[in-house]
Amino acid sequence: MIIAEPLQIAIDELSKLPSIGKKTAQRLALHLLKSDKQTVEALVKSLVELKEKITFCRNCFNISTDELCDICKSAKRDRTMICVVEEASDIIAIEKTNEYNGLYHVLGGVLNPLANVTADKLKINELLPRIEKEGTKEIILALNPDAEGDTTALFIARLLKSYHVKVTRIARGLPIGGDLEFADEATIGRAFLGRIIVQ
Amino acid sequence: MIIAEPLQIAIDELSKLPSIGKKTAQRLALHLLKSDKQTVEALVKSLVELKEKITFCRNCFNISTDELCDICKSAKRDRTMICVVEEASDIIAIEKTNEYNGLYHVLGGVLNPLANVTADKLKINELLPRIEKEGTKEIILALNPDAEGDTTALFIARLLKSYHVKVTRIARGLPIGGDLEFADEATIGRAFLGRIIVQ
Repeated sequence: MIIAEPLQIAIDELSKLPSIGKKTAQRLALHLLKSDKQTVEALVKSLVELKEKITFCRNCFNISTDELCDICKSAKRDRTMICVVEEASDIIAIEKTNEYNGLYHVLGGVLNPLANVTADKLKINELLPRIEKEGTKEIILALNPDAEGDTTALFIARLLKSYHVKVTRIARGLPIGGDLEFADEATIGRAFLGRIIVQ
Repeated sequence: MIIAEPLQIAIDELSKLPSIGKKTAQRLALHLLKSDKQTVEALVKSLVELKEKITFCRNCFNISTDELCDICKSAKRDRTMICVVEEASDIIAIEKTNEYNGLYHVLGGVLNPLANVTADKLKINELLPRIEKEGTKEIILALNPDAEGDTTALFIARLLKSYHVKVTRIARGLPIGGDLEFADEATIGRAFLGRIIVQ
Protein backbone atom coordinates (compact mmCIF):
# COMPACT_ATOMS: atom_id res chain seq x y z
CA MET A 1 0.00 0.00 0.00
CA ILE A 2 1.53 3.29 -1.10
CA ILE A 3 -1.05 5.81 0.09
CA ALA A 4 -2.49 5.84 3.63
CA GLU A 5 -6.17 4.81 3.55
CA PRO A 6 -7.80 8.05 4.85
CA LEU A 7 -5.78 9.99 2.26
CA GLN A 8 -6.83 7.61 -0.53
CA ILE A 9 -10.50 7.94 0.49
CA ALA A 10 -10.27 11.75 0.50
CA ILE A 11 -8.59 11.67 -2.94
CA ASP A 12 -11.36 9.40 -4.27
CA GLU A 13 -14.10 11.65 -2.89
CA LEU A 14 -12.49 14.84 -4.22
CA SER A 15 -11.95 13.35 -7.67
CA LYS A 16 -15.72 12.76 -7.95
CA LEU A 17 -16.13 16.53 -8.26
CA PRO A 18 -16.46 17.94 -11.79
CA SER A 19 -13.17 19.01 -13.45
CA ILE A 20 -11.12 17.49 -10.60
CA GLY A 21 -8.94 14.62 -11.83
CA LYS A 22 -6.93 12.14 -9.74
CA LYS A 23 -3.80 14.32 -9.75
CA THR A 24 -5.62 17.50 -8.73
CA ALA A 25 -7.53 15.56 -6.05
CA GLN A 26 -4.22 14.29 -4.65
CA ARG A 27 -2.79 17.81 -4.61
CA LEU A 28 -5.91 19.17 -2.88
CA ALA A 29 -5.91 16.39 -0.27
CA LEU A 30 -2.20 16.87 0.50
CA HIS A 31 -2.77 20.62 0.69
CA LEU A 32 -5.56 20.13 3.24
CA LEU A 33 -3.36 17.72 5.17
CA LYS A 34 -0.69 20.42 5.47
CA SER A 35 -3.22 23.20 6.24
CA ASP A 36 -4.07 24.04 9.82
CA LYS A 37 -7.13 22.55 11.49
CA GLN A 38 -9.24 25.74 11.32
CA THR A 39 -8.91 25.99 7.52
CA VAL A 40 -10.20 22.45 7.01
CA GLU A 41 -12.93 22.93 9.62
CA ALA A 42 -14.12 26.13 7.90
CA LEU A 43 -14.30 24.33 4.55
CA VAL A 44 -16.14 21.34 6.01
CA LYS A 45 -18.59 23.61 7.87
CA SER A 46 -19.32 25.62 4.72
CA LEU A 47 -20.11 22.42 2.78
CA VAL A 48 -22.38 21.08 5.53
CA GLU A 49 -24.26 24.39 5.75
CA LEU A 50 -24.47 24.64 1.97
CA LYS A 51 -26.53 21.45 1.99
CA GLU A 52 -28.46 22.23 5.17
CA LYS A 53 -29.39 25.87 4.67
CA ILE A 54 -29.95 26.11 0.95
CA THR A 55 -33.09 24.89 -0.73
CA PHE A 56 -34.82 25.68 -4.03
CA CYS A 57 -37.41 28.43 -4.46
CA ARG A 58 -40.83 26.80 -4.86
CA ASN A 59 -41.85 29.39 -7.45
CA CYS A 60 -38.84 29.69 -9.80
CA PHE A 61 -36.48 26.91 -8.54
CA ASN A 62 -33.63 29.33 -8.00
CA ILE A 63 -31.37 28.48 -5.05
CA SER A 64 -32.68 30.08 -1.89
CA THR A 65 -32.36 30.04 1.88
CA ASP A 66 -36.14 30.40 2.12
CA GLU A 67 -39.31 28.95 0.55
CA LEU A 68 -39.26 31.84 -1.90
CA CYS A 69 -35.99 33.22 -3.26
CA ASP A 70 -34.92 36.86 -2.84
CA ILE A 71 -35.82 37.66 -6.44
CA CYS A 72 -39.36 36.25 -6.21
CA LYS A 73 -39.87 38.04 -2.87
CA SER A 74 -38.48 41.39 -4.07
CA ALA A 75 -40.94 44.25 -4.65
CA LYS A 76 -38.46 45.96 -6.98
CA ARG A 77 -38.53 43.37 -9.78
CA ASP A 78 -40.56 43.68 -12.96
CA ARG A 79 -43.07 40.83 -12.48
CA THR A 80 -44.29 40.92 -16.10
CA MET A 81 -41.15 39.19 -17.41
CA ILE A 82 -39.87 35.69 -16.77
CA CYS A 83 -36.39 34.73 -17.96
CA VAL A 84 -36.09 30.95 -18.48
CA VAL A 85 -32.61 29.56 -17.73
CA GLU A 86 -31.01 26.13 -17.57
CA GLU A 87 -29.32 26.36 -14.17
CA ALA A 88 -29.29 28.64 -11.12
CA SER A 89 -25.70 29.56 -12.02
CA ASP A 90 -27.08 31.29 -15.13
CA ILE A 91 -29.09 33.61 -12.86
CA ILE A 92 -25.87 34.63 -11.11
CA ALA A 93 -24.29 35.42 -14.50
CA ILE A 94 -27.32 37.41 -15.71
CA GLU A 95 -27.72 39.32 -12.43
CA LYS A 96 -24.11 40.47 -12.67
CA THR A 97 -24.93 42.32 -15.90
CA ASN A 98 -27.55 44.57 -14.24
CA GLU A 99 -29.41 44.51 -17.58
CA TYR A 100 -32.41 42.47 -16.48
CA ASN A 101 -34.86 43.22 -13.69
CA GLY A 102 -37.59 40.63 -14.18
CA LEU A 103 -38.23 37.22 -12.65
CA TYR A 104 -36.59 33.88 -13.48
CA HIS A 105 -37.51 30.26 -14.02
CA VAL A 106 -34.83 27.56 -13.63
CA LEU A 107 -35.45 24.43 -15.74
CA GLY A 108 -32.76 22.38 -13.99
CA GLY A 109 -31.34 21.20 -17.32
CA VAL A 110 -32.19 21.04 -21.02
CA LEU A 111 -33.87 18.39 -23.16
CA ASN A 112 -31.34 15.72 -24.08
CA PRO A 113 -32.83 12.42 -25.27
CA LEU A 114 -29.37 10.79 -25.43
CA ALA A 115 -28.83 11.44 -21.72
CA ASN A 116 -32.46 10.45 -21.04
CA VAL A 117 -33.48 13.99 -20.05
CA THR A 118 -37.11 14.35 -21.12
CA ALA A 119 -39.54 17.23 -20.54
CA ASP A 120 -41.02 15.67 -17.37
CA LYS A 121 -37.55 15.74 -15.72
CA LEU A 122 -37.33 19.51 -16.17
CA LYS A 123 -39.41 22.24 -14.54
CA ILE A 124 -41.21 23.05 -17.81
CA ASN A 125 -44.74 22.24 -16.64
CA GLU A 126 -44.20 24.41 -13.57
CA LEU A 127 -43.65 27.42 -15.86
CA LEU A 128 -47.12 27.41 -17.46
CA PRO A 129 -49.32 28.15 -14.38
CA ARG A 130 -47.00 31.05 -13.49
CA ILE A 131 -48.00 32.97 -16.64
CA GLU A 132 -51.64 33.42 -15.60
CA LYS A 133 -50.97 33.69 -11.89
CA GLU A 134 -48.29 36.36 -12.25
CA GLY A 135 -49.72 38.14 -15.33
CA THR A 136 -46.58 37.51 -17.36
CA LYS A 137 -46.28 39.51 -20.59
CA GLU A 138 -42.92 38.26 -21.87
CA ILE A 139 -41.00 35.01 -21.55
CA ILE A 140 -37.29 35.39 -22.38
CA LEU A 141 -35.61 32.10 -23.28
CA ALA A 142 -31.99 32.50 -22.12
CA LEU A 143 -30.75 29.00 -22.90
CA ASN A 144 -27.28 28.12 -24.09
CA PRO A 145 -26.72 28.53 -27.87
CA ASP A 146 -26.18 24.82 -28.57
CA ALA A 147 -28.25 21.94 -29.97
CA GLU A 148 -29.90 21.03 -26.64
CA GLY A 149 -30.59 24.66 -25.76
CA ASP A 150 -32.15 25.26 -29.19
CA THR A 151 -34.33 22.14 -28.93
CA THR A 152 -35.53 23.09 -25.47
CA ALA A 153 -36.27 26.68 -26.56
CA LEU A 154 -38.31 25.40 -29.52
CA PHE A 155 -40.20 22.96 -27.29
CA ILE A 156 -41.11 25.66 -24.77
CA ALA A 157 -42.01 28.16 -27.51
CA ARG A 158 -44.52 25.62 -28.93
CA LEU A 159 -46.08 25.00 -25.52
CA LEU A 160 -46.50 28.76 -25.09
CA LYS A 161 -48.30 29.24 -28.43
CA SER A 162 -51.75 29.05 -26.82
CA TYR A 163 -50.82 31.63 -24.17
CA HIS A 164 -51.10 35.38 -24.72
CA VAL A 165 -47.46 36.00 -24.01
CA LYS A 166 -44.55 37.37 -26.02
CA VAL A 167 -41.73 34.83 -26.33
CA THR A 168 -38.18 36.04 -27.05
CA ARG A 169 -34.68 34.56 -27.14
CA ILE A 170 -31.52 36.40 -26.15
CA ALA A 171 -29.43 37.61 -29.11
CA ARG A 172 -26.61 35.68 -30.70
CA GLY A 173 -23.70 37.38 -32.35
CA LEU A 174 -20.08 38.24 -31.81
CA PRO A 175 -19.09 38.32 -28.14
CA ILE A 176 -17.87 41.71 -26.86
CA GLY A 177 -14.11 41.82 -27.32
CA GLY A 178 -14.37 38.97 -29.84
CA ASP A 179 -12.53 38.97 -33.14
CA LEU A 180 -14.48 38.66 -36.39
CA GLU A 181 -11.52 37.00 -38.07
CA PHE A 182 -11.48 34.13 -35.60
CA ALA A 183 -15.24 33.73 -35.02
CA ASP A 184 -16.86 30.58 -36.47
CA GLU A 185 -19.14 30.93 -39.51
CA ALA A 186 -22.31 30.03 -37.57
CA THR A 187 -21.73 32.91 -35.15
CA ILE A 188 -20.91 35.39 -37.93
CA GLY A 189 -23.97 34.19 -39.89
CA ARG A 190 -26.19 34.75 -36.84
CA ALA A 191 -24.65 38.17 -36.28
CA PHE A 192 -25.64 39.15 -39.83
CA LEU A 193 -29.16 37.77 -39.51
CA GLY A 194 -29.63 39.58 -36.21
CA ARG A 195 -28.14 42.92 -37.36
CA ILE A 196 -29.74 46.02 -35.89
CA ILE A 197 -30.47 49.43 -37.47
CA VAL A 198 -28.08 52.11 -36.22
CA GLN A 199 -29.57 55.11 -37.99
CA MET B 1 -27.43 40.29 -2.87
CA ILE B 2 -27.14 37.98 -5.85
CA ILE B 3 -25.79 34.80 -4.26
CA ALA B 4 -27.37 33.21 -1.16
CA GLU B 5 -24.99 33.56 1.80
CA PRO B 6 -24.27 29.86 2.54
CA LEU B 7 -23.44 29.39 -1.15
CA GLN B 8 -21.14 32.43 -1.14
CA ILE B 9 -19.33 31.14 1.97
CA ALA B 10 -18.85 27.70 0.37
CA ILE B 11 -17.52 29.34 -2.82
CA ASP B 12 -15.09 31.45 -0.77
CA GLU B 13 -13.83 28.42 1.17
CA LEU B 14 -13.43 26.27 -1.95
CA SER B 15 -11.57 29.02 -3.80
CA LYS B 16 -8.92 29.04 -1.05
CA LEU B 17 -7.77 25.63 -2.34
CA PRO B 18 -4.78 25.62 -4.71
CA SER B 19 -5.63 25.82 -8.43
CA ILE B 20 -9.33 26.48 -7.66
CA GLY B 21 -10.40 29.94 -8.86
CA LYS B 22 -13.68 31.76 -8.17
CA LYS B 23 -15.41 30.30 -11.24
CA THR B 24 -14.37 26.70 -10.52
CA ALA B 25 -15.34 27.14 -6.86
CA GLN B 26 -18.80 28.33 -7.94
CA ARG B 27 -19.19 25.34 -10.25
CA LEU B 28 -18.10 22.93 -7.50
CA ALA B 29 -20.45 24.50 -4.93
CA LEU B 30 -23.41 24.39 -7.32
CA HIS B 31 -22.54 20.79 -8.19
CA LEU B 32 -22.56 19.82 -4.50
CA LEU B 33 -25.85 21.67 -4.06
CA LYS B 34 -27.40 19.53 -6.79
CA SER B 35 -25.78 16.30 -5.56
CA ASP B 36 -27.64 14.04 -3.15
CA LYS B 37 -27.02 14.27 0.57
CA GLN B 38 -24.93 11.06 0.80
CA THR B 39 -22.39 12.33 -1.76
CA VAL B 40 -21.74 15.52 0.18
CA GLU B 41 -21.67 13.66 3.49
CA ALA B 42 -19.12 11.17 2.14
CA LEU B 43 -16.90 14.05 0.96
CA VAL B 44 -17.20 15.91 4.26
CA LYS B 45 -16.49 12.73 6.26
CA SER B 46 -13.40 11.96 4.17
CA LEU B 47 -12.01 15.46 4.80
CA VAL B 48 -12.67 15.27 8.54
CA GLU B 49 -11.00 11.84 8.77
CA LEU B 50 -8.12 13.01 6.61
CA LYS B 51 -7.27 15.54 9.31
CA GLU B 52 -8.12 13.32 12.27
CA LYS B 53 -6.52 10.03 11.28
CA ILE B 54 -3.42 11.09 9.38
CA THR B 55 -0.29 12.28 11.10
CA PHE B 56 3.36 12.47 10.10
CA CYS B 57 5.87 9.65 10.68
CA ARG B 58 8.21 10.67 13.51
CA ASN B 59 11.19 9.10 11.75
CA CYS B 60 10.90 10.20 8.10
CA PHE B 61 7.95 12.72 8.20
CA ASN B 62 6.03 10.82 5.55
CA ILE B 63 2.24 10.90 5.98
CA SER B 64 1.10 8.03 8.17
CA THR B 65 -1.83 6.72 10.19
CA ASP B 66 0.61 5.63 12.90
CA GLU B 67 3.63 6.98 14.78
CA LEU B 68 5.84 5.27 12.21
CA CYS B 69 4.83 5.08 8.54
CA ASP B 70 4.40 1.79 6.66
CA ILE B 71 7.73 2.25 4.88
CA CYS B 72 9.73 2.83 8.09
CA LYS B 73 7.95 -0.14 9.73
CA SER B 74 8.43 -2.51 6.78
CA ALA B 75 10.98 -5.34 7.11
CA LYS B 76 11.25 -5.60 3.32
CA ARG B 77 12.87 -2.21 2.70
CA ASP B 78 16.59 -1.67 2.18
CA ARG B 79 17.47 0.30 5.33
CA THR B 80 20.93 1.33 4.06
CA MET B 81 19.48 3.96 1.70
CA ILE B 82 17.59 7.16 2.48
CA CYS B 83 15.96 9.09 -0.33
CA VAL B 84 15.52 12.78 0.57
CA VAL B 85 12.41 14.38 -0.96
CA GLU B 86 10.66 17.73 -0.72
CA GLU B 87 7.10 16.56 -0.03
CA ALA B 88 5.24 13.37 0.87
CA SER B 89 3.61 13.50 -2.57
CA ASP B 90 7.08 12.85 -4.06
CA ILE B 91 7.16 9.52 -2.17
CA ILE B 92 3.90 8.50 -3.84
CA ALA B 93 5.41 9.34 -7.26
CA ILE B 94 8.65 7.43 -6.54
CA GLU B 95 6.86 4.40 -5.06
CA LYS B 96 4.79 4.08 -8.23
CA THR B 97 7.98 3.45 -10.24
CA ASN B 98 8.91 0.30 -8.22
CA GLU B 99 12.56 1.27 -8.83
CA TYR B 100 13.47 2.18 -5.26
CA ASN B 101 13.21 0.04 -2.16
CA GLY B 102 14.99 2.10 0.49
CA LEU B 103 13.76 4.51 3.13
CA TYR B 104 12.73 8.16 2.74
CA HIS B 105 13.15 11.50 4.46
CA VAL B 106 10.63 14.28 3.80
CA LEU B 107 12.06 17.80 4.18
CA GLY B 108 8.66 19.51 4.04
CA GLY B 109 9.91 22.08 1.53
CA VAL B 110 13.12 23.44 0.04
CA LEU B 111 15.36 26.33 1.00
CA ASN B 112 13.91 29.57 -0.33
CA PRO B 113 15.23 32.74 1.29
CA LEU B 114 12.75 34.91 -0.66
CA ALA B 115 9.81 33.04 0.87
CA ASN B 116 11.61 33.05 4.23
CA VAL B 117 12.15 29.27 4.23
CA THR B 118 15.43 28.71 6.06
CA ALA B 119 17.12 25.43 7.04
CA ASP B 120 15.56 25.41 10.53
CA LYS B 121 12.07 25.35 9.00
CA LEU B 122 12.84 22.12 7.15
CA LYS B 123 13.52 18.65 8.56
CA ILE B 124 17.21 18.80 7.62
CA ASN B 125 18.61 18.49 11.14
CA GLU B 126 16.39 15.45 11.72
CA LEU B 127 18.15 13.65 8.85
CA LEU B 128 21.63 13.66 10.40
CA PRO B 129 21.04 11.44 13.50
CA ARG B 130 19.29 8.87 11.26
CA ILE B 131 22.55 8.11 9.42
CA GLU B 132 24.33 6.67 12.46
CA LYS B 133 21.24 5.17 14.03
CA GLU B 134 20.11 3.35 10.90
CA GLY B 135 23.58 2.59 9.47
CA THR B 136 22.82 4.51 6.25
CA LYS B 137 25.28 3.90 3.42
CA GLU B 138 23.74 6.14 0.73
CA ILE B 139 21.71 9.34 0.75
CA ILE B 140 19.87 9.96 -2.52
CA LEU B 141 18.84 13.60 -3.02
CA ALA B 142 15.64 13.44 -5.09
CA LEU B 143 14.80 17.14 -5.11
CA ASN B 144 13.16 19.01 -7.96
CA PRO B 145 15.59 20.13 -10.70
CA ASP B 146 15.13 23.87 -10.09
CA ALA B 147 17.08 26.64 -8.35
CA GLU B 148 15.63 25.94 -4.88
CA GLY B 149 16.06 22.18 -5.25
CA ASP B 150 19.68 22.63 -6.35
CA THR B 151 20.45 24.99 -3.46
CA THR B 152 18.92 22.62 -0.93
CA ALA B 153 20.78 19.63 -2.38
CA LEU B 154 24.08 21.54 -2.19
CA PHE B 155 23.33 22.58 1.39
CA ILE B 156 22.58 19.02 2.49
CA ALA B 157 25.57 17.59 0.60
CA ARG B 158 27.86 20.01 2.50
CA LEU B 159 26.36 19.01 5.86
CA LEU B 160 26.95 15.35 5.00
CA LYS B 161 30.64 15.86 4.16
CA SER B 162 31.77 14.81 7.64
CA TYR B 163 29.65 11.64 7.54
CA HIS B 164 30.85 8.36 6.01
CA VAL B 165 27.98 8.19 3.57
CA LYS B 166 27.67 8.20 -0.20
CA VAL B 167 25.60 11.16 -1.45
CA THR B 168 23.94 10.93 -4.87
CA ARG B 169 21.42 12.95 -6.87
CA ILE B 170 18.85 11.48 -9.27
CA ALA B 171 19.80 11.83 -12.95
CA ARG B 172 18.76 14.70 -15.18
CA GLY B 173 18.28 14.26 -18.86
CA LEU B 174 15.61 13.95 -21.49
CA PRO B 175 12.30 12.68 -20.09
CA ILE B 176 11.10 9.34 -21.49
CA GLY B 177 8.94 10.08 -24.52
CA GLY B 178 10.48 13.55 -24.72
CA ASP B 179 11.62 15.09 -27.97
CA LEU B 180 15.24 16.23 -28.34
CA GLU B 181 14.17 18.89 -30.83
CA PHE B 182 11.88 20.59 -28.34
CA ALA B 183 13.92 20.09 -25.15
CA ASP B 184 15.53 23.20 -23.62
CA GLU B 185 19.30 23.63 -23.87
CA ALA B 186 19.88 23.16 -20.12
CA THR B 187 18.24 19.73 -20.23
CA ILE B 188 20.12 18.67 -23.36
CA GLY B 189 23.36 19.95 -21.84
CA ARG B 190 22.75 17.91 -18.69
CA ALA B 191 21.88 14.86 -20.77
CA PHE B 192 25.28 15.12 -22.48
CA LEU B 193 27.17 15.65 -19.24
CA GLY B 194 25.41 12.67 -17.67
CA ARG B 195 25.81 10.33 -20.68
CA ILE B 196 26.32 6.66 -19.86
CA ILE B 197 28.53 4.06 -21.56
CA VAL B 198 26.48 1.57 -23.57
CA GLN B 199 29.28 -0.70 -24.70
